[in-house]
Amino acid sequence: MDYAKKAMEMHEQLKGKLEVVSKVKIETRDDLSTAYTPGVAAPCLEIQKNPNKSYELTGRGNCVAVITDGSAVLGLGDIGPEAGMPVMEGKCVLFKEFGGVDAIPLCIRSKDVGEIVRTISLLAGSFGGINLEDIAAPRCFEIEKKLKEVCDIPVFHDDQHGTAIVVASALLNALKVVHKEMGTVDIVINGAGSAGVAIAKLLLDMKFGNITLVDKAGILNIHNNNLTSGQREIVDITGCEKEGTLADAMKDADVFIGVSAPNIVSEEVVASMHKGAIVFTMANPTPEIMPDLALHAGAVVVGTGRSDFPNQINNVLAFPGIFKGALEVRASDINEEMKIAAAYGIASLISEDELKADYIIPSALDKRVAKAVAEAVKEAAIKSGVARI
Amino acid sequence: MDYAKKAMEMHEQLKGKLEVVSKVKIETRDDLSTAYTPGVAAPCLEIQKNPNKSYELTGRGNCVAVITDGSAVLGLGDIGPEAGMPVMEGKCVLFKEFGGVDAIPLCIRSKDVGEIVRTISLLAGSFGGINLEDIAAPRCFEIEKKLKEVCDIPVFHDDQHGTAIVVASALLNALKVVHKEMGTVDIVINGAGSAGVAIAKLLLDMKFGNITLVDKAGILNIHNNNLTSGQREIVDITGCEKEGTLADAMKDADVFIGVSAPNIVSEEVVASMHKGAIVFTMANPTPEIMPDLALHAGAVVVGTGRSDFPNQINNVLAFPGIFKGALEVRASDINEEMKIAAAYGIASLISEDELKADYIIPSALDKRVAKAVAEAVKEAAIKSGVARI
Repeated sequence: MDYAKKAMEMHEQLKGKLEVVSKVKIETRDDLSTAYTPGVAAPCLEIQKNPNKSYELTGRGNCVAVITDGSAVLGLGDIGPEAGMPVMEGKCVLFKEFGGVDAIPLCIRSKDVGEIVRTISLLAGSFGGINLEDIAAPRCFEIEKKLKEVCDIPVFHDDQHGTAIVVASALLNALKVVHKEMGTVDIVINGAGSAGVAIAKLLLDMKFGNITLVDKAGILNIHNNNLTSGQREIVDITGCEKEGTLADAMKDADVFIGVSAPNIVSEEVVASMHKGAIVFTMANPTPEIMPDLALHAGAVVVGTGRSDFPNQINNVLAFPGIFKGALEVRASDINEEMKIAAAYGIASLISEDELKADYIIPSALDKRVAKAVAEAVKEAAIKSGVARI
Repeated sequence: MDYAKKAMEMHEQLKGKLEVVSKVKIETRDDLSTAYTPGVAAPCLEIQKNPNKSYELTGRGNCVAVITDGSAVLGLGDIGPEAGMPVMEGKCVLFKEFGGVDAIPLCIRSKDVGEIVRTISLLAGSFGGINLEDIAAPRCFEIEKKLKEVCDIPVFHDDQHGTAIVVASALLNALKVVHKEMGTVDIVINGAGSAGVAIAKLLLDMKFGNITLVDKAGILNIHNNNLTSGQREIVDITGCEKEGTLADAMKDADVFIGVSAPNIVSEEVVASMHKGAIVFTMANPTPEIMPDLALHAGAVVVGTGRSDFPNQINNVLAFPGIFKGALEVRASDINEEMKIAAAYGIASLISEDELKADYIIPSALDKRVAKAVAEAVKEAAIKSGVARI
């Protein structure tokens, strides 16, 4: 299937994948006087008295901004803010189709952290949440951190946390297939950019065994002097002292998680892993090792980012439900507890009976997922004290 | 009719008057791969090569941002950004229902001119136009002026120019009713804030007779030292040397245009106007003089801002069609030529046969208007060289 051609035809024909529609018809003077002046003054004055009423009297309570600077769009790199918009619109489509959440795509013509943070924070009264998207590392970390400090609404960088949550959910189920315990497994994460670091952080928070973070230069350890602050945080927690290559790291490992580059893992290396190996080979579109090769080399459970292989590890399983849940309880934040709840929520949709090596994670098209995730996230928001309803 | 109560019920029930919907359904893997990855990379790369393609491949070409800082909402004053949102949503409803334009409401948590300008200009790649709304004077002038300098998309402050355009269109037809020529009439504008100044400016550009601008302190003339830059621009053009009160100004005038305060014009003052007087008494909700009193005092044509009297001078006649027209030719600006074309476009919808003292302007609900305005605006954009298609 030539998706590039199909997508061009779709985008040319539709001129944008979203439409803003009115929930009210304006056909009579009464309609106009109720939806607009003079009637509209009444909800305005209610919100003036109590700005939190904006969640009940405007669309804010079900509305997320999907925001990019266009600097790391898909695997295409820094293609510019306007060029990132088809992806942002696509994300908004998924928010609506899976989570019922109204989402508005915005691109920002700046690469300055302070300026991006200020712009978004000044708009925070218009939305119930902020989904950051396709912003290059390490800028994305700083932007998210600062926004979380200044915004009274949840801020979530999907490339980091969405990926981490879905990987964690897949891993929870994969470990059941190979009968291993989450606290004892050796996990290698290859690719120490925004996704890799976020995966490591979440797996550590969830108490998944021993984690080794690897990038182009080899294993990241506490003696490295040129780590980013995110990488430093991880090795400080793991206390990793190991040195060596990716192949060294993978020898006898239980789990490989690749968010790196095509064809960089050989069959020999997979064969050197511990019995019952789990391989999530997620570089897109070409994985670190093709699934059939990984299986041939002895891996038991294999996942990819692609829709044409089993066990697709796709962010769409997480973000619609996470924001749906966060919005429903008017959460001030999307915290670790909520991310962990989302991971368990996704994993729980596959029953013990259904669970098998090539079915560890629901289909990206499974519309039950967002609802289950939202319920889990809501509960975690309430328990962790960030719900405001 | 208790519109406040009806509006509260509507806003509580709907939780926002807008919805963002997807034009595409996501039910199969093909759908996902076409609307999102991997297919979506194709339109992204097209836009990277030529950012103008964003008008064809994303929703930008039919999308306007409706932006406020919440500082001058309706007649309610500075009620804050969140509290302005019901009005912004209402405006977006009208954009869609009358002009078919997708409009997104945004409120900005700042009152700093530089910061508001920077925020909006950084978002300009997401939209085809910017409609500023309910921003207090004189900040609104500065913000609009600076945005017009830095943005490559049209910027339009509706409280100024929308009002001016609709007043001008009503005046064009009112003069026909009283058989007076536009170049010779004496016009008094009371209220020298953003609307009053914009009306004066547009009427001058359209070559409407002699204009006297009046505010609380009386007639504004070239000897005043405390004028705003907008007021100064007007008196420099008119060269007004007159002094006196509103009553002095209105004596023997042909036209009164009130955008000021309730009940400040007496019957005696209207009676002192020239024969065939035109009175647009537009303070909201209570006019400068009630229409029946103005008619009783001898006015021949009376217009208000209210829907419960004839000749409602309502901005909704202008902005949906103006942006529809500007977007259709991808205009870089909404210039004087386009505003003037819009005024004539609205006026032209009433035929010579239909025209009478209590029907000088189409109903706010007349759905022919936006289309006619858009056509006129498009033509003017092309002729004046700001069309980009």
